[in-house]
Amino acid sequence: MRKLSVFNHISLDGYFVSANGDMSWAHQGSDDAEYQAFVADNASGDSEMLFGRVTYEMMAGFWPTPVAHQQMPVVANKMNNGRKAVFSRTLSKAGWNNTTLVKGDLVEEVRKMKQAGGPDMVILGSGSIVAHLAAAGLIDTYQVVVNPVALGAGRTLFEGLPEIMRLKLTGSRAFKNGKTFLTFKA
Amino acid sequence: MRKLSVFNHISLDGYFVSANGDMSWAHQGSDDAEYQAFVADNASGDSEMLFGRVTYEMMAGFWPTPVAHQQMPVVANKMNNGRKAVFSRTLSKAGWNNTTLVKGDLVEEVRKMKQAGGPDMVILGSGSIVAHLAAAGLIDTYQVVVNPVALGAGRTLFEGLPEIMRLKLTGSRAFKNGKTFLTFKA
Repeated sequence: MRKLSVFNHISLDGYFVSANGDMSWAHQGSDDAEYQAFVADNASGDSEMLFGRVTYEMMAGFWPTPVAHQQMPVVANKMNNGRKAVFSRTLSKAGWNNTTLVKGDLVEEVRKMKQAGGPDMVILGSGSIVAHLAAAGLIDTYQVVVNPVALGAGRTLFEGLPEIMRLKLTGSRAFKNGKTFLTFKA
Repeated sequence: MRKLSVFNHISLDGYFVSANGDMSWAHQGSDDAEYQAFVADNASGDSEMLFGRVTYEMMAGFWPTPVAHQQMPVVANKMNNGRKAVFSRTLSKAGWNNTTLVKGDLVEEVRKMKQAGGPDMVILGSGSIVAHLAAAGLIDTYQVVVNPVALGAGRTLFEGLPEIMRLKLTGSRAFKNGKTFLTFKA
């Protein structure tokens, strides 16, 4: 069965996005060579990328631009050419290259996708879909970059989780820029 | 000047306490020798311990009991005999051994305590006082145990922080039991 991972940046107070929707705090101070090598390496797999609508629209508005190609050529290439799916009941089409628009029930659709053949899958950003899929037991691994910043308010990946969920730490790596990369198994 | 630290357990979604006030999730699976040695070592300093009222009352109701002495003798000894201060406008007395009750303005009182002579100080639990002191620039270091658990809802240490606060990562240590200890400088 295809594995499903989550990859996300969070603040020390657990938020993947600030109260006003900002995620730029997760990318400040990230331009050192050690961390850039990690980002490029992490983006070099061929997993299908899954998005909620909000993250999809934000990324579709950034990665195809010349700025993205200039600043992060390896990641931009992966993001633009890689296989993608967006879950939305309101979008009528998904114009970003190589994207499937999925309009059915999130949990059922992901269950079907996992059982069908294909590459592994990874959820990027898209906190709103993580808690639903976690509660349904559909997420296999969590990859979290803990940023050395406190936001005071925002949204967590696990908002609305119906009960405490225990994970198994499988790896940790601290970067000179102050970020810590933690990986967990469900 | 006396240094002020924060030591706290948090969940992967950033909470030091669950929505119903529970902190027991932070202590399950903590009884292995590697982690117990860390806890005892960490408790062996002579810092003055600072508390908000809620955490103070919870700890004052636990550490003097026979169960605490039996389960964690080193930590219980430190907690019961160490110098303590509780910040509260509503308490009329603080009966736990070696505790000072501080009734004035939190920020002003801590500023005075830092300028006076004495051992370093550490805030344990007491999330409600952390954000105020952090915003006033009075906290020097943060020591955070990230637990491999998601709660779904709760309270963060940085609730109500008026603006984004950037910290400097100074250390990280992953434990076999799945906890990660991260330290930061303000």
